[in-house]
Amino acid sequence: MKFFENEDTKIFALGGLGEVGKNMYCIMHGNEIVITDAGMSIPANDLMGVDYVIPDFTFLKNNESKIKGLFITHGHEDHIGGIPFLLQTVNIPVIYAPNQAVGLIRRKLEDRNIQYKNLIVYDERTKVKFKNIEVEFFRTTHSIPDSHGICITTPNGVIVTTGDFKFDFTPIGPMANLHKMAAIGKRGVTLLMSDSTNALNEGISISESRVDNALSEIFLREKGRIIIATFASNIYRLKHIVDTCKRNGRKIAIFGRSMQNNIEISIQGGYIKNKEIFITPEEANHLPPDKVCLLCTGSQGEPLAALSRIAEGNHRQIKLLEDDVVIFSSSAIPGNAASIGKIINKLYLRGVSVYTNTSLNDIHTSGHANEEELKLMLRLIKPKYFMPFHGEYRMLKRHADIGILCGIPKSNTFVLGNGEVLSMRKGVVKKSGLVPAEDVYVDGNRIGDLGAAVIKDRKTMANDGIIVVIANINTMKASLLGKVNVITRGFVLINENEELLKEIEVVAKEAILSKLHKPVSYADIKSELISAIVTYSYEKTGRKPIVLPVIMDIKNS
Amino acid sequence: MKFFENEDTKIFALGGLGEVGKNMYCIMHGNEIVITDAGMSIPANDLMGVDYVIPDFTFLKNNESKIKGLFITHGHEDHIGGIPFLLQTVNIPVIYAPNQAVGLIRRKLEDRNIQYKNLIVYDERTKVKFKNIEVEFFRTTHSIPDSHGICITTPNGVIVTTGDFKFDFTPIGPMANLHKMAAIGKRGVTLLMSDSTNALNEGISISESRVDNALSEIFLREKGRIIIATFASNIYRLKHIVDTCKRNGRKIAIFGRSMQNNIEISIQGGYIKNKEIFITPEEANHLPPDKVCLLCTGSQGEPLAALSRIAEGNHRQIKLLEDDVVIFSSSAIPGNAASIGKIINKLYLRGVSVYTNTSLNDIHTSGHANEEELKLMLRLIKPKYFMPFHGEYRMLKRHADIGILCGIPKSNTFVLGNGEVLSMRKGVVKKSGLVPAEDVYVDGNRIGDLGAAVIKDRKTMANDGIIVVIANINTMKASLLGKVNVITRGFVLINENEELLKEIEVVAKEAILSKLHKPVSYADIKSELISAIVTYSYEKTGRKPIVLPVIMDIKNS
Repeated sequence: MKFFENEDTKIFALGGLGEVGKNMYCIMHGNEIVITDAGMSIPANDLMGVDYVIPDFTFLKNNESKIKGLFITHGHEDHIGGIPFLLQTVNIPVIYAPNQAVGLIRRKLEDRNIQYKNLIVYDERTKVKFKNIEVEFFRTTHSIPDSHGICITTPNGVIVTTGDFKFDFTPIGPMANLHKMAAIGKRGVTLLMSDSTNALNEGISISESRVDNALSEIFLREKGRIIIATFASNIYRLKHIVDTCKRNGRKIAIFGRSMQNNIEISIQGGYIKNKEIFITPEEANHLPPDKVCLLCTGSQGEPLAALSRIAEGNHRQIKLLEDDVVIFSSSAIPGNAASIGKIINKLYLRGVSVYTNTSLNDIHTSGHANEEELKLMLRLIKPKYFMPFHGEYRMLKRHADIGILCGIPKSNTFVLGNGEVLSMRKGVVKKSGLVPAEDVYVDGNRIGDLGAAVIKDRKTMANDGIIVVIANINTMKASLLGKVNVITRGFVLINENEELLKEIEVVAKEAILSKLHKPVSYADIKSELISAIVTYSYEKTGRKPIVLPVIMDIKNS
Repeated sequence: MKFFENEDTKIFALGGLGEVGKNMYCIMHGNEIVITDAGMSIPANDLMGVDYVIPDFTFLKNNESKIKGLFITHGHEDHIGGIPFLLQTVNIPVIYAPNQAVGLIRRKLEDRNIQYKNLIVYDERTKVKFKNIEVEFFRTTHSIPDSHGICITTPNGVIVTTGDFKFDFTPIGPMANLHKMAAIGKRGVTLLMSDSTNALNEGISISESRVDNALSEIFLREKGRIIIATFASNIYRLKHIVDTCKRNGRKIAIFGRSMQNNIEISIQGGYIKNKEIFITPEEANHLPPDKVCLLCTGSQGEPLAALSRIAEGNHRQIKLLEDDVVIFSSSAIPGNAASIGKIINKLYLRGVSVYTNTSLNDIHTSGHANEEELKLMLRLIKPKYFMPFHGEYRMLKRHADIGILCGIPKSNTFVLGNGEVLSMRKGVVKKSGLVPAEDVYVDGNRIGDLGAAVIKDRKTMANDGIIVVIANINTMKASLLGKVNVITRGFVLINENEELLKEIEVVAKEAILSKLHKPVSYADIKSELISAIVTYSYEKTGRKPIVLPVIMDIKNS
């Protein structure tokens, strides 16, 4: 490797700092850029109609020729979900990803009809060398197989990024490679970037094996159909649900597209065996209840997911039976507690028993490290500098404090936002500058054409509706032609408010006439219309709808 | 009391079953109706623009002449918030409420300019007798002073309704009247209706006194300004915040209208003394940090509340200082965890310390009874029949199970929905019939004029926006006059999508022309326009906006 030691190495996030979601981190040295992960996030419900939020690719577009490759740590949406949008915008010469992630990425690209040839599977033995930058991998434990941390050697120092991880000493899959982490740490690491998702949780996370035991107990006890809702992305959970069903003589029917996808890819990858255990919903309906497990999406109360439709009683294939048992093998993502509660109420209403994850009942564990596991990572890698990533600000802050507890000087910890650049030179890391890293919204199939103005209009219409006022005028004569029409949507029930709508027509007509002088000013008429109607409507209804004046000149007709 | 024993007594909820919110329960015997509570609830965020949800008053309107009075258990919004709307709809001859609730109701009516003379304060000694129904009260403990349970004697049996309660053996206010409850139980109760809010919580709730201690410890430790966010309705919490400030030599500035109201009414009622401890924000800004406490609304992350504006740095009077400490003396209401998390992140970003309620740190306790307290109530009242109320279905269900554990036969427990009627005759209670009890929406100042159609339109516009198409036609000639205009809101950024909008105009024009035959059918043209534009827009953008065709006949112009 040829070194250009007179140049800084730049490190920054395009997503993943100050948020759980859309992870994307860039490392640049000279003419080379290496990217780790390209995630997306699902917006909070105050973002009207936005389907996904993705990173801002402007910097990458402007430096397209320098991009050497994208390296994926694991196959979760907040690490791979941005790939289709990235590939539509920027030329990425090669994507390296571990086996399970490659399966998921491939399906994602097929779904969107994107042709991409250079998707390469890596494993722990893979080393990728560019002119200045060298990339290698170490196995971690997470809730999806083939999760890896990445070690990136640059002329100015070594950077380790953990991806998502936990330490589980009795994992369902293979053990994390503690020895490789230790060896990398021993060799010397300049900067560690580590997963902060559960930095606020003390102690050590529960082993996936304990969840296995808890599920087994329920399977032994219950004699009705067992319906399990869990994250489709939690492949190890799916794996031991399959194993538990096998031990207990239950067949499995799958509900939900993402569940189906993940299971298929996991079977292809060999993570889930027992292909013969899967049956169709039709077949499930013909087996005795104690021979059936229904595995479905919707553990977060998503209204369109399988579990929600089953609970509502409007699922096409599955009708609830009195002895059915529903297990939420999941935890509530913040903000979803109310919608999960709604589903549980509906399940109870249908006389079904429900298990949720409580302190008494370990039917779920997170895939992310708690405080003591974070300390173990810090101790193994023993970096000179530390930048917590993958988390909201309070999590990053707590994780930095944990770093300080593990001997990293406070001045060597960086709690940053997306776009803030770290500069590394001969083993010394400093803050320097900014690159654009705002949220980019995807609505439907359009990337980034939703500005603040559109979102604001959507919010107003969501709360108060819209009033369209249509009038024809003759600008030559400055006269109103015919009647003024008022049409509303989302404002009031039209049939029950004919009088109010007639009054608004009168207000509109008066507003137009009051400003209809020669020379006719559309702007004057429109602003008078908007102000008169909003005022009147607020007085009468307490609502301030959008008023959309349509003034047409028909002097030529 | 003259008995009409040949008549059934009817008991039903107009709100409060299957939900936490808008409590309203009716007891009817012959020509007499007694109502307990008249609450409202704040809608979940999938109800576009709805400000409040209130009970359906149809039954009461239709039986107006029978209504003898409304009895309020305590002054929380989910028990008194519906009163202004009720009084606007139905004639209520008298409202009995305890002292603190009367203060809050009075202010509520003043705010809405409602004149009402017959608001009477009751206490434990009050007895109200009608021809068939007799009403008396017993003191309970809750997070607001003057909370009461109500005992209603009818010709067919005795009904006890607990209102909201917990048992706190070291309360901040007076003890609950265990002896009166015991005496009522001994006399014999046919039906108990009891608070199910925390039926899913095991054990016994934490005493408010322990919260007092936890707050005191923080006050002793911290030297910066202390900012406390809590529920304005939690008067006992406010009381010991005042006491703690007094002991620690801190003055209090209040932020948020509901906080101001509740404090004023509590001072008037004598629940909070030390009036001189309150200062203006201006005065607070001129005192040393360790002499100041800022008491504010916004503990649920409400974006417009004081705490949120302080965290954002755009509060007019309060700028955060580095040593400031923020205490959330509250818990997250389901669904609010994400918005609370946002505020905590912002507070951390501004370098402020934050205390939230955790298992290590009792800075909040609920005002509702846990399982063992519910059992105590069941054992004291020892009813023959049991109807859990005030809770979502899963809470009612669990509470019914707790009743069964306390010796009530399963067949004597009723887990009901709003509007389901119980019929009581000579001490025997059965289900019988239904009254209307749907949710009624209040948006702005209009009650109940938001139908499902309006909400649906608002949702569509919130997600995909609206396209208005305006065309003038001459119906006599079946010809299009001038150009077709397309105006959008909330659909795409207009400036960046001129081409798309022009294409939509072309699609619209073609759609109109394809259906413009003699005799002209508006319906045909409109449905063709909607279908053509929605299809085109979905293909191009993935969005399905509302399409609003405005076709005007200007044959006469």
